[in-house]
Amino acid sequence: MKVAVIMGSKSDYPKLEEGIKILKEFGIAVEARVLSAHRTPSELMSFMDEIQNSVDVIIAAAGKAAHLPGVVASHTLIPVIGLPIKSSTLDGLDSLLSIVQMPKGIPVATVTIDSSLNAALLATQIMSLKYENLKIKLDNYRREMAKKVLHDDESISNL
Amino acid sequence: MKVAVIMGSKSDYPKLEEGIKILKEFGIAVEARVLSAHRTPSELMSFMDEIQNSVDVIIAAAGKAAHLPGVVASHTLIPVIGLPIKSSTLDGLDSLLSIVQMPKGIPVATVTIDSSLNAALLATQIMSLKYENLKIKLDNYRREMAKKVLHDDESISNL
Amino acid sequence: MKVAVIMGSKSDYPKLEEGIKILKEFGIAVEARVLSAHRTPSELMSFMDEIQNSVDVIIAAAGKAAHLPGVVASHTLIPVIGLPIKSSTLDGLDSLLSIVQMPKGIPVATVTIDSSLNAALLATQIMSLKYENLKIKLDNYRREMAKKVLHDDESISNL
Amino acid sequence: MKVAVIMGSKSDYPKLEEGIKILKEFGIAVEARVLSAHRTPSELMSFMDEIQNSVDVIIAAAGKAAHLPGVVASHTLIPVIGLPIKSSTLDGLDSLLSIVQMPKGIPVATVTIDSSLNAALLATQIMSLKYENLKIKLDNYRREMAKKVLHDDESISNL
Amino acid sequence: MKVAVIMGSKSDYPKLEEGIKILKEFGIAVEARVLSAHRTPSELMSFMDEIQNSVDVIIAAAGKAAHLPGVVASHTLIPVIGLPIKSSTLDGLDSLLSIVQMPKGIPVATVTIDSSLNAALLATQIMSLKYENLKIKLDNYRREMAKKVLHDDESISNL
Amino acid sequence: MKVAVIMGSKSDYPKLEEGIKILKEFGIAVEARVLSAHRTPSELMSFMDEIQNSVDVIIAAAGKAAHLPGVVASHTLIPVIGLPIKSSTLDGLDSLLSIVQMPKGIPVATVTIDSSLNAALLATQIMSLKYENLKIKLDNYRREMAKKVLHDDESISNL
Amino acid sequence: MKVAVIMGSKSDYPKLEEGIKILKEFGIAVEARVLSAHRTPSELMSFMDEIQNSVDVIIAAAGKAAHLPGVVASHTLIPVIGLPIKSSTLDGLDSLLSIVQMPKGIPVATVTIDSSLNAALLATQIMSLKYENLKIKLDNYRREMAKKVLHDDESISNL
Amino acid sequence: MKVAVIMGSKSDYPKLEEGIKILKEFGIAVEARVLSAHRTPSELMSFMDEIQNSVDVIIAAAGKAAHLPGVVASHTLIPVIGLPIKSSTLDGLDSLLSIVQMPKGIPVATVTIDSSLNAALLATQIMSLKYENLKIKLDNYRREMAKKVLHDDESISNL
Repeated sequence: MKVAVIMGSKSDYPKLEEGIKILKEFGIAVEARVLSAHRTPSELMSFMDEIQNSVDVIIAAAGKAAHLPGVVASHTLIPVIGLPIKSSTLDGLDSLLSIVQMPKGIPVATVTIDSSLNAALLATQIMSLKYENLKIKLDNYRREMAKKVLHDDESISNL
Repeated sequence: MKVAVIMGSKSDYPKLEEGIKILKEFGIAVEARVLSAHRTPSELMSFMDEIQNSVDVIIAAAGKAAHLPGVVASHTLIPVIGLPIKSSTLDGLDSLLSIVQMPKGIPVATVTIDSSLNAALLATQIMSLKYENLKIKLDNYRREMAKKVLHDDESISNL
Repeated sequence: MKVAVIMGSKSDYPKLEEGIKILKEFGIAVEARVLSAHRTPSELMSFMDEIQNSVDVIIAAAGKAAHLPGVVASHTLIPVIGLPIKSSTLDGLDSLLSIVQMPKGIPVATVTIDSSLNAALLATQIMSLKYENLKIKLDNYRREMAKKVLHDDESISNL
Repeated sequence: MKVAVIMGSKSDYPKLEEGIKILKEFGIAVEARVLSAHRTPSELMSFMDEIQNSVDVIIAAAGKAAHLPGVVASHTLIPVIGLPIKSSTLDGLDSLLSIVQMPKGIPVATVTIDSSLNAALLATQIMSLKYENLKIKLDNYRREMAKKVLHDDESISNL
Repeated sequence: MKVAVIMGSKSDYPKLEEGIKILKEFGIAVEARVLSAHRTPSELMSFMDEIQNSVDVIIAAAGKAAHLPGVVASHTLIPVIGLPIKSSTLDGLDSLLSIVQMPKGIPVATVTIDSSLNAALLATQIMSLKYENLKIKLDNYRREMAKKVLHDDESISNL
Repeated sequence: MKVAVIMGSKSDYPKLEEGIKILKEFGIAVEARVLSAHRTPSELMSFMDEIQNSVDVIIAAAGKAAHLPGVVASHTLIPVIGLPIKSSTLDGLDSLLSIVQMPKGIPVATVTIDSSLNAALLATQIMSLKYENLKIKLDNYRREMAKKVLHDDESISNL
Repeated sequence: MKVAVIMGSKSDYPKLEEGIKILKEFGIAVEARVLSAHRTPSELMSFMDEIQNSVDVIIAAAGKAAHLPGVVASHTLIPVIGLPIKSSTLDGLDSLLSIVQMPKGIPVATVTIDSSLNAALLATQIMSLKYENLKIKLDNYRREMAKKVLHDDESISNL
Repeated sequence: MKVAVIMGSKSDYPKLEEGIKILKEFGIAVEARVLSAHRTPSELMSFMDEIQNSVDVIIAAAGKAAHLPGVVASHTLIPVIGLPIKSSTLDGLDSLLSIVQMPKGIPVATVTIDSSLNAALLATQIMSLKYENLKIKLDNYRREMAKKVLHDDESISNL
């Protein structure tokens, strides 16, 4: 059970930590890498070759004209989750559109801007097709999440 | 091998045909349904209960304030692919944002506006984790797609 | 005279306080709850059942792909006011479109992004159809508001 | 039981017909008027004075910099539903923002761009606080709507 | 020579100061007022009546669904300059569209978001049709502005 | 009494006709020219020199990155009205922002996208500071406009 | 003197014809190819290797999440001109942002949406650094363009 | 080997420093100037005349309705790189559209909002057509950039 997490720039790492943490808590191996579709295309391709048979899902995170997820997706049949990162201009719209609007034939599974948690949970849901035990973990996670909401609900409704 | 394709309105069907066709060509059973998160919430929930153990991936397509994919995702651990449908105003932006910007905890795998083909291919890639033979079919599909591009390339470069 | 105020997340509470305060000043009972359309769908449905006959208006506040108001609206004939909450990306546009662009048949009465005051005043105006005395309170409120503007006008025109 | 439907221009009428029709089917009297906030401000004010005690809800529809709903709302405590009309540029975004983003103190209940049906249904839901029998009619309407979806569902799932 | 400067809220004043200052430097009388199209419509109308013959140009500034300039314009033939004020959401787009996209027949002369200086200069240019001496002042102002740029140019080109 | 109407391209002419017609009906001389800020900069400058003392107001219409109004404004103290023309992409947003968001010091009086009528009426209002008789014509025009609305109102309210 | 024109899809060809025609008129060799960054990545890379020493400028045209120009740019030091193609949703905004917002280090020279003419003229201007005779051709082209505007000007000003 | 860097305002300088620094490191002479298309049009024209034969590429940076790059481009055949600067409203969208959407005939090579580095690298790539030695420098720069990514990759993959 392994997920590759590729980010276009080291500066994206803080936004990825939450997702990486949850994957590890689920017992999923994570290989986190900084590889740029534009600045290190050949190293990215080498890494793609390397993981073709060892990784179940790929999470690719990038900002601005975020080509990384699409470029990764065009080199593999492994499902690729695209995580748009908001940068200093345009409020995340550029990265969202650059990731989700993939041309016909090469889909990228795009999630909420800046939410590595959602990327990680989607990766886990996808992997649960193959690894049944992840379903129980996901189910527990949802229960905990619901409990937290109900706890918040109690604190607010008692105000 | 089965995919549920849920659309919020019968009028979305023509945009879904291309995706349904490719799924069937891949030998994947398709259950196509018209169920609205807002107009038939209880029937939608019944259908969700019904498919929990018989479906591998869900494709949910909707326009405008497209809640269907998110509502479906909140009732299952099966991976949900959200397909934004462009309606008569706002050029698809409303459905895209309503589908992709899911709050923390419940991801929807969002694809290109109006592209049921990408939804279907993503579903197949996800299912290939479990059904190895789909990889060969996807691989062939990509080869055919590449051939088509190269054929187009030839016709253009000979102009 | 009662309004249910449902928020998708406890973190929305600070933006709701102004509206809750004015409702209480008008003598309207407020039941404030944290319930998520995605993380606690069944608890939300239980709450919806509970309030069908005891609440006059519902205010539902949510951010990002804000499905809460629409999901609530699809389970009741009580008027639902949708309050879009601005989150960390896209400047409120995602929550606005996810709330206001409801498909045909299930309307949500959408108000200004982040303005729980406008949600509360709209709720009061709606309730004044049934509770005549609210009209006097609303009328007084508008007079006070006008006085404040005229007071500001005096301070500026004397500069 | 009466609703005033004010449109900024006669050319908006075709988009209002669906809503007016449903109101009449519910047995609600409709007074449809063409009155512009900018071109006939005094006639609009006269009309506002005229209806203060005879109308339960106001629907105001306008395009572009759609001031009509807000201007109407500032002259009454009757709930005002704002219906943004898409015009030849900007795909409805200008009218939506001009209607929904009302400053603090004067809310407008904004509905889906170009959907007079949603405006009419919201008006009916609001009026049902006072006129109990409307609840049955709305309930029936929703059942019919659900039936239509289920009928569509049948035709699609049998394909 | 007189300009009325109307703002929808006292909180807009700091953004108006630069424009008011330049008008006064040009020897133009300024009547600055806080009057809301929605919260004080009748006081606004009284003020409009008052200034019909004593003011040459009106500057109206407002944020969000900024109706003030359009409402003012519909009650006078005096040229109205609309100044969109950026508020806490949507980055100024809502106020810009609400001011500039006026329906046919009632124009508002819209200027740069948040730039009261441009509003004031436009007012002065308009008034210079009637008051010839303003042309010399505007000409001097432009020369000073150019000098400042050239001074900046010198400091940068010497780096 | 003279207005210069400059368009960036001959293809904009059909959208300008309505405005030119109303100016002529008001007895205002119109000099309509096709001059591009980018393709004929020197001819534009010659024309600017030519009209400095013979024209009261300038209307400049352009699409896409619509620099024409701003460039014209930087070469004169005559008030410049900018008319954004919608072109084949981006629905008019590009021309609107390129015209209205002028940097500090050189304002352009921007009007509704594609509405040469509003440009012409604003020009006339501005000129009425100098030519008193235009006020009567504008007043009559508004009365006619109101009559037309009231006529439409009658036809609709009688339906 | 050679330009490579790469399009992501054969369907973009009609929008490229105008640009290819002008390049040929300038005596510049054009190699037009259909190669997709996502569907034929290896063929694209082969072509990139092939042209490294034989082409002066590359024009890359693509729609939606238009990665082609950026991917091409990351594999060469030859200047790459990106031409955003408007597709069936989002009015060209997605392709524009996907092309222009390139991360630090790998620029793409982006031009007007759908304007292969501007791409071709920019390519020629760039090549004129090396091939002096292109300057004369460009100069003539601009003169012809200006003549056309002046001809249009004459026809309009004589109306 | 010389690049002219023109900025519309001295306040843009801090965003230009990174680009100017890299150009100088490449041994390219830089002439940095503050010249406004609107506030100092004649000085801008003089500068344009001055550099026609001494400069290889022009970088023009501006914010808001950023006309500077387009105006510069219309006065020269030298390639003009447009750098959109984000200002206090609209998140850079206004400057981007005002620069990139140039009308037919006068292209501007637009780069990433606020990225003077990309402007400088594009300028260098363009100049490398004429000055072969720049290719080696660019190649080295890309290698260094790749090394930095790989260094970051190591630090992240070792976490």
